[in-house]
Amino acid sequence: MLRKVALKDISELKVHGRTTDCLEPLTLFWTASGFECNVSGTELWVEVEVTYDTFEPWFSYTVNGDWVGRQMLLKGRYWVPLFRGMSADQMKNVRFYKDLQAMSDDGNSYIQIHALRLDGEFYPVKEKKLKLEFIGDSITSGEGLFGAKEEEDWIPMFFSSLKDYAYLTAKKLDAEYRIFSQSGWGVYSGWDNNKNHAIPPHYRQICSLMESDQNERLGGNRAHDFASWQPDYVIVNLGTNDAGSFDQPEWVDEQTGERHKMRQNVDGSLNKEDVAAFQNAVKGFVGLIRECNPKAHIIWCYGMLGLKLQLYICEAIAEYVEETGDYRVSYLQLTDTDDSNVGSRQHPGALCHKQAAETLTKYILTLGDN
Amino acid sequence: MLRKVALKDISELKVHGRTTDCLEPLTLFWTASGFECNVSGTELWVEVEVTYDTFEPWFSYTVNGDWVGRQMLLKGRYWVPLFRGMSADQMKNVRFYKDLQAMSDDGNSYIQIHALRLDGEFYPVKEKKLKLEFIGDSITSGEGLFGAKEEEDWIPMFFSSLKDYAYLTAKKLDAEYRIFSQSGWGVYSGWDNNKNHAIPPHYRQICSLMESDQNERLGGNRAHDFASWQPDYVIVNLGTNDAGSFDQPEWVDEQTGERHKMRQNVDGSLNKEDVAAFQNAVKGFVGLIRECNPKAHIIWCYGMLGLKLQLYICEAIAEYVEETGDYRVSYLQLTDTDDSNVGSRQHPGALCHKQAAETLTKYILTLGDN
Amino acid sequence: MLRKVALKDISELKVHGRTTDCLEPLTLFWTASGFECNVSGTELWVEVEVTYDTFEPWFSYTVNGDWVGRQMLLKGRYWVPLFRGMSADQMKNVRFYKDLQAMSDDGNSYIQIHALRLDGEFYPVKEKKLKLEFIGDSITSGEGLFGAKEEEDWIPMFFSSLKDYAYLTAKKLDAEYRIFSQSGWGVYSGWDNNKNHAIPPHYRQICSLMESDQNERLGGNRAHDFASWQPDYVIVNLGTNDAGSFDQPEWVDEQTGERHKMRQNVDGSLNKEDVAAFQNAVKGFVGLIRECNPKAHIIWCYGMLGLKLQLYICEAIAEYVEETGDYRVSYLQLTDTDDSNVGSRQHPGALCHKQAAETLTKYILTLGDN
Amino acid sequence: MLRKVALKDISELKVHGRTTDCLEPLTLFWTASGFECNVSGTELWVEVEVTYDTFEPWFSYTVNGDWVGRQMLLKGRYWVPLFRGMSADQMKNVRFYKDLQAMSDDGNSYIQIHALRLDGEFYPVKEKKLKLEFIGDSITSGEGLFGAKEEEDWIPMFFSSLKDYAYLTAKKLDAEYRIFSQSGWGVYSGWDNNKNHAIPPHYRQICSLMESDQNERLGGNRAHDFASWQPDYVIVNLGTNDAGSFDQPEWVDEQTGERHKMRQNVDGSLNKEDVAAFQNAVKGFVGLIRECNPKAHIIWCYGMLGLKLQLYICEAIAEYVEETGDYRVSYLQLTDTDDSNVGSRQHPGALCHKQAAETLTKYILTLGDN
Repeated sequence: MLRKVALKDISELKVHGRTTDCLEPLTLFWTASGFECNVSGTELWVEVEVTYDTFEPWFSYTVNGDWVGRQMLLKGRYWVPLFRGMSADQMKNVRFYKDLQAMSDDGNSYIQIHALRLDGEFYPVKEKKLKLEFIGDSITSGEGLFGAKEEEDWIPMFFSSLKDYAYLTAKKLDAEYRIFSQSGWGVYSGWDNNKNHAIPPHYRQICSLMESDQNERLGGNRAHDFASWQPDYVIVNLGTNDAGSFDQPEWVDEQTGERHKMRQNVDGSLNKEDVAAFQNAVKGFVGLIRECNPKAHIIWCYGMLGLKLQLYICEAIAEYVEETGDYRVSYLQLTDTDDSNVGSRQHPGALCHKQAAETLTKYILTLGDN
Repeated sequence: MLRKVALKDISELKVHGRTTDCLEPLTLFWTASGFECNVSGTELWVEVEVTYDTFEPWFSYTVNGDWVGRQMLLKGRYWVPLFRGMSADQMKNVRFYKDLQAMSDDGNSYIQIHALRLDGEFYPVKEKKLKLEFIGDSITSGEGLFGAKEEEDWIPMFFSSLKDYAYLTAKKLDAEYRIFSQSGWGVYSGWDNNKNHAIPPHYRQICSLMESDQNERLGGNRAHDFASWQPDYVIVNLGTNDAGSFDQPEWVDEQTGERHKMRQNVDGSLNKEDVAAFQNAVKGFVGLIRECNPKAHIIWCYGMLGLKLQLYICEAIAEYVEETGDYRVSYLQLTDTDDSNVGSRQHPGALCHKQAAETLTKYILTLGDN
Repeated sequence: MLRKVALKDISELKVHGRTTDCLEPLTLFWTASGFECNVSGTELWVEVEVTYDTFEPWFSYTVNGDWVGRQMLLKGRYWVPLFRGMSADQMKNVRFYKDLQAMSDDGNSYIQIHALRLDGEFYPVKEKKLKLEFIGDSITSGEGLFGAKEEEDWIPMFFSSLKDYAYLTAKKLDAEYRIFSQSGWGVYSGWDNNKNHAIPPHYRQICSLMESDQNERLGGNRAHDFASWQPDYVIVNLGTNDAGSFDQPEWVDEQTGERHKMRQNVDGSLNKEDVAAFQNAVKGFVGLIRECNPKAHIIWCYGMLGLKLQLYICEAIAEYVEETGDYRVSYLQLTDTDDSNVGSRQHPGALCHKQAAETLTKYILTLGDN
Repeated sequence: MLRKVALKDISELKVHGRTTDCLEPLTLFWTASGFECNVSGTELWVEVEVTYDTFEPWFSYTVNGDWVGRQMLLKGRYWVPLFRGMSADQMKNVRFYKDLQAMSDDGNSYIQIHALRLDGEFYPVKEKKLKLEFIGDSITSGEGLFGAKEEEDWIPMFFSSLKDYAYLTAKKLDAEYRIFSQSGWGVYSGWDNNKNHAIPPHYRQICSLMESDQNERLGGNRAHDFASWQPDYVIVNLGTNDAGSFDQPEWVDEQTGERHKMRQNVDGSLNKEDVAAFQNAVKGFVGLIRECNPKAHIIWCYGMLGLKLQLYICEAIAEYVEETGDYRVSYLQLTDTDDSNVGSRQHPGALCHKQAAETLTKYILTLGDN
């Protein structure tokens, strides 16, 4: 006999990803956020409530760790079936993934979870020993991991939270993980020189880059409680859009008239002041992450879409380390994208993310020896 | 502006898989059956009608050849969105796959397609130069390609039509393909010695192994028009359940009292009469396939779950060739399943199917040179 | 202080490959034959005596299982250094490989081993639990495993005993192994229809396919003492040259005037009588191997250079099994050669042999469970 | 008919590696140095003259690009056969490799080449379009690429010039290459804090790290004529021994009493002054390389044995670039060694070098687009 259980009544439920502590309903902001449960019974459904103006969210889910479904979610509040016909007595692990990044371009794009429907019981989800936080841009949002090579549309269908290096690294290390990422954004400015598209100013909030009344109401703009979840490793994969901004035209804020442009010299070298500003942003962000995560090892990753700013990033980190004596910060180069491993939208494909996950996992294991 | 177009009005539509010529609606019987279309426009929906008693069908779909979604289909007639927000002027290739075999255990499990809804136009689908037909059992039905290794439930969720060697081989060869397969069935009897679970008696019909009034009404029991679709290669992957039947207890038909058992001798060898009966079935089936497909090359594949009957299959085929002078029949061994490539339900996993597809593709290319 | 020790005085020495029991000197006939020893000391030399008319032998050697050297051996009796400067107290395992098949075209091509020179001691070589015998043609002789793809010269330099599937399989299974192989030879006749180039008539002798007074003197024509070394598995990889003979012109024995030709029909099919003669040879050879190796599992492998005779081989084996009730005989298809894995001289390359070794190892492990 | 031709009389001969312009005989100093020729004829021999006190040199050679032999070379002047029995009319490309680094610990270890013996003619060797110079330590000397994992002896047998990333990268890019490398040496000091074991002071000479009268006589201490061979890319792979020196005890020069030690702080961080000295050495060496190779792209590689000094290396390079405006200098991280890819002597194994070559090749190709 199927019965509905409100999320707040499921003490065994595990919530993944940065969100508020509200469970009536649970709001999913970030890619790879969601919930996980261990259930018996033959059947399981989830009651979702979905809103958006332009960009509909997708979800994926795993049963006992294996990915079995992925679909577009339309507006409204309705029940979605996750499994049917399974052995009643067997315990199943189910993990629901928001399969789309927080969409800063659509402040009303959310999945909310109200309840589950089942004919079994809930069991506790075992805590993982390791916690990882990934901070990044489109690469970390899994952009380009779905879709044929020739695809150019920037649509939710082509984002993935289960083929990306973050998911794969966490799986290899048997770790819990969270993603904080935004396509097109950088450390100092976005790919288009938009200064509002820097990740660091948003890091202290739950999810403040969604600009809307709904986000305010849902609590995305509230301060994040870092004490509630302390990662062992913070992996930052930023700089790719900052690199791009040197090649892009000036950005003009239509409302304030503010202008911004990262400058390239005639000989192809980069403007020293702009590089310095970028480096300050890197150092500042590392400091901010450290403040919020006192015990974590911070790994700055880069290179999946070119190495243009590598030396500057490294220099900034080296200076940070020297100035602060904070030695638990390091740098790791990840596999570059070329014809052999590219996905859609000129982004890293599944093979590139697999290679990155192998490099990162291997590196984390060497740090673990310390 | 979205508009609905009934399937029968889409002259550019390509139907995949054995079915009737009815498009009001189109009935999907077999795994990997479905439809394909080239469309412009920003949005595409499909109107399905789904029935089942026990085993709900699933579907998967590709956009421009890349797999983007997979979901369970519940009972009823309703619209399912396939894509949104794409560039209006760009032509998209969309292929809808029934992601579940014809379920002989549930004579009411069908997907039917009524109409599409879109804001673009239809364009012709290019015909492939090569046609492949796959005839098989659970392996060819993709059983075990979804789900964790430990899964034991025999449910639709764990079948796949897009990770199996048939899909992969067709993709490598840029071929159109059809699948005719049933889990647990064999050439002479099923894995459990059930004599009704032999594939050959059903080969001349569209889909006669679904036993139900609905199947009769939908036309599944009608004769298949072989002239309408002549494959270049018929790949038979049968014998695995026949091999298993020697280890299984006697089967008793509850209605007729008929009994059947493939016998094994005390020393572990197989009963000669039963082997002869199996071999006759192999020879008979090859003859039947030849009758229906006069020009095809017939490749009997075996070995993805053990080689127990290999010598007997080869001997039967060799005898068939010698007796008939029909030299366009051959045998191919496929990669066996072991710990390194197993999927769920002790079935071949994704790696095993990939290996099988490589072997088969390579072999077909050598034949193509002749 | 280096000292010379005659082979006959080294009780700890392990001899590999079919040969006589003479150690003054030890004669190496077959590819991969040689010796193995465990030694301490800083330095090791081997005293070889080499003869040939046309085809000079090569040797390779491993230190602690890793291949470190390979070189051509010129005529004469002389010392060759194997290692220098190693830690005196450490025990080293050294294995010397004749890196060239018995050359039936040069009855005077031999390596003989007289003595070792060292400053350490000898220690016993641990016996392996598993023994494998490989019987084959050029594939098993490792022809084409050295040399660029375009090479066409039939010379010793392009044969390898350490890149072939026999070596690789033995390594994976931690088995001792022997090779009995001859390039161009078959079960019934050679690739050129030469009836003298059938392997079976030579199987009972130590190495009777070297025709020369020297071979008689060295004992190659004497009966092999099968009781002295009983393999657990006999792997036969023959049929490829028999397949080729159907495409080749008639062979005429210049001395006796005898003629022979495997015939192909006008429609491309094979002459039934000739196929029957080939099949009799297969059955006869399996029977002969069984007689000599009562407890071994016999695996007939085929397919690394095409599958032309596969059905006939399988039929012959199936008939043998049925007629004799000898169930420890089976058939295994190995990976075919194509552009992706070809070596020199249109022969299987290193990748093809690696794939074959994986298939064979996997298969032997399944038999081992019985 | 075989005839001897002195090296100086072979105008078609191509010499590889840094050496003097003397051909009577040609002296081989560095690993991977040697000669290359295109010859017709059935047979080819090389006349070598070999000297050493402790560490005997080895050589390897390729025929038409495929590695066919490798052997230890003993003292003396003698002929070594390279091939026999080949088709007379066919042109063969033969490349002779010194398979051992310049051995600074044995100032008398050299291979010299006097002449070739053949029955064919010489043909010009085609010039490659791309030139690479590799500067490094034991990794670039291919230490650990031969030998079982457990090997610890530091002997020539375990060095390889044909499995290392330099050879593999050059092969992938179809480039000519040279290696300048020394096991245990660093940018600022050796692994054991020995200040005499820094690479940069030797870079302007042909091969001045061999300390002996023989080296003086052979011309190794003479200035290298950079104009004679300008690489397109200089790949530096140094820093690994500098990293190690922080963990090693103080070095005392037995003759001068000079002492040196790179210091580590109690908290595990590195002494700032020592890091600064190392960074100065890095900057200085980049400047020196630039001076000698005005047009080359300089790539500093690191990471095959840990990333300890990565940030400091990058910072030094970044500062060099900023201070000089010389933008054709970059940094590349190579794959680290772990259990999955280790060779002998705890050094990177063949797989690790293959991965490094893939990364480096890919990177060079991206630079080539500029």
